[in-house]
Amino acid sequence: MVQTIAFDADDTLWVNETIFTSTRDKIEALLKDHVTHKSLDQTLYDTEIKNLNIFGYGIKGFMLSTIETCIEITQGAIDGETIQKIIDLGKDMLKHPVEILPGIEEAIKSLKGQYRLMIITKGDLFDQESKIARSGLADYFDMIEVVSEKNTSTYQHLLHKYAIDSENFLMIGNSLKSDILPICELGANAIHIPFYTTWEHEIVSKQDAEGHQYYTLSSIAELHECISQINQQRQIH
Amino acid sequence: MVQTIAFDADDTLWVNETIFTSTRDKIEALLKDHVTHKSLDQTLYDTEIKNLNIFGYGIKGFMLSTIETCIEITQGAIDGETIQKIIDLGKDMLKHPVEILPGIEEAIKSLKGQYRLMIITKGDLFDQESKIARSGLADYFDMIEVVSEKNTSTYQHLLHKYAIDSENFLMIGNSLKSDILPICELGANAIHIPFYTTWEHEIVSKQDAEGHQYYTLSSIAELHECISQINQQRQIH
Repeated sequence: MVQTIAFDADDTLWVNETIFTSTRDKIEALLKDHVTHKSLDQTLYDTEIKNLNIFGYGIKGFMLSTIETCIEITQGAIDGETIQKIIDLGKDMLKHPVEILPGIEEAIKSLKGQYRLMIITKGDLFDQESKIARSGLADYFDMIEVVSEKNTSTYQHLLHKYAIDSENFLMIGNSLKSDILPICELGANAIHIPFYTTWEHEIVSKQDAEGHQYYTLSSIAELHECISQINQQRQIH
Repeated sequence: MVQTIAFDADDTLWVNETIFTSTRDKIEALLKDHVTHKSLDQTLYDTEIKNLNIFGYGIKGFMLSTIETCIEITQGAIDGETIQKIIDLGKDMLKHPVEILPGIEEAIKSLKGQYRLMIITKGDLFDQESKIARSGLADYFDMIEVVSEKNTSTYQHLLHKYAIDSENFLMIGNSLKSDILPICELGANAIHIPFYTTWEHEIVSKQDAEGHQYYTLSSIAELHECISQINQQRQIH
């Protein structure tokens, strides 16, 4: 039986990727008066991935990678004023209002009391804590964990820390790579609720996703029925 | 009786502030061919403090504040190449070898088994985890907590989370502001081991420190004797 339900945060509880996409568009517009030797999008992605093992996830690393990319694609010709505008766009991202996804608050409210509720989110500690506080949802959750990476070993560590059996654990999130597949590996329960857009780094091939047992919902409104199904399945086995 | 001993990390377990100081010197040298309208040091500090509530603590925020400061003091005349050099200096900081302070490993080894040992460090999650992993000290600790701010409410939350009574808790650190005074407020035990240099933001006035009961050691070598004293004091009261 499911006893603990953990939610991913970015693009599961609230809008996130859209803020990155719109900032990338604004930076592209900032650069239109500069001669650029490579495309922003692909070079930025390459720089972000190259820097991931030094910066980790989050907006500050994204800002630094963006500045590096703009220096590279303008061959150093970018000026101080434009770089300041990039930093200001990053600050806007960090101060962006938290936009809760439709149906989330109702769903969480209805689970409260019946299950131990948890947030497991990856990224920048300061930014994630700020978003959790500003979301107004913090009080619904019994445990909040900000982690630097979401892989099998992270989840194993958390299940151990809170003495949770994997069969009693359900993770809900939008990323197959970070929220679903590592949970399946541990024999726990997972529900995938895709967001309409996914960061390139989080995309997994159909092949990688195959052979894993998880549920996919098109909306959080289907959550209760799905949890009943999971519990029935667990009773049969 | 002391049962749980928590250590601060930066400038308590390993060298930190020195890396910032030496990077600031290198940036000052980078700027020597630019006309600067204000001094780097004071403007950088002002920018860091102004950005603290958006960036939080840590090297990535420091890098972004440094870039902003250099744009400001050169009135936008700084070039892309110099900004890339600043980013590279920041990356060097993030990859800097972890230099454990003298006597630390021996002290921790000798406490292991007698006490529950903990690290409580503030700053960037990814960077702090990386340093803890690279320090080789992680296995000595039963609990590791990276927090975004160290104040009374942070410590209260942690004591509650791990069901620790304040009188059984001892915090050891180099910062009066972050490691000592909030602990005294909670009626827990605190040992201050000053590092030879302190970031301006962490300095507290003599007045603010007055009236708090804590121990000050000049070296970690005096730790065992100090813990005995704390336990004797606790028995008397």
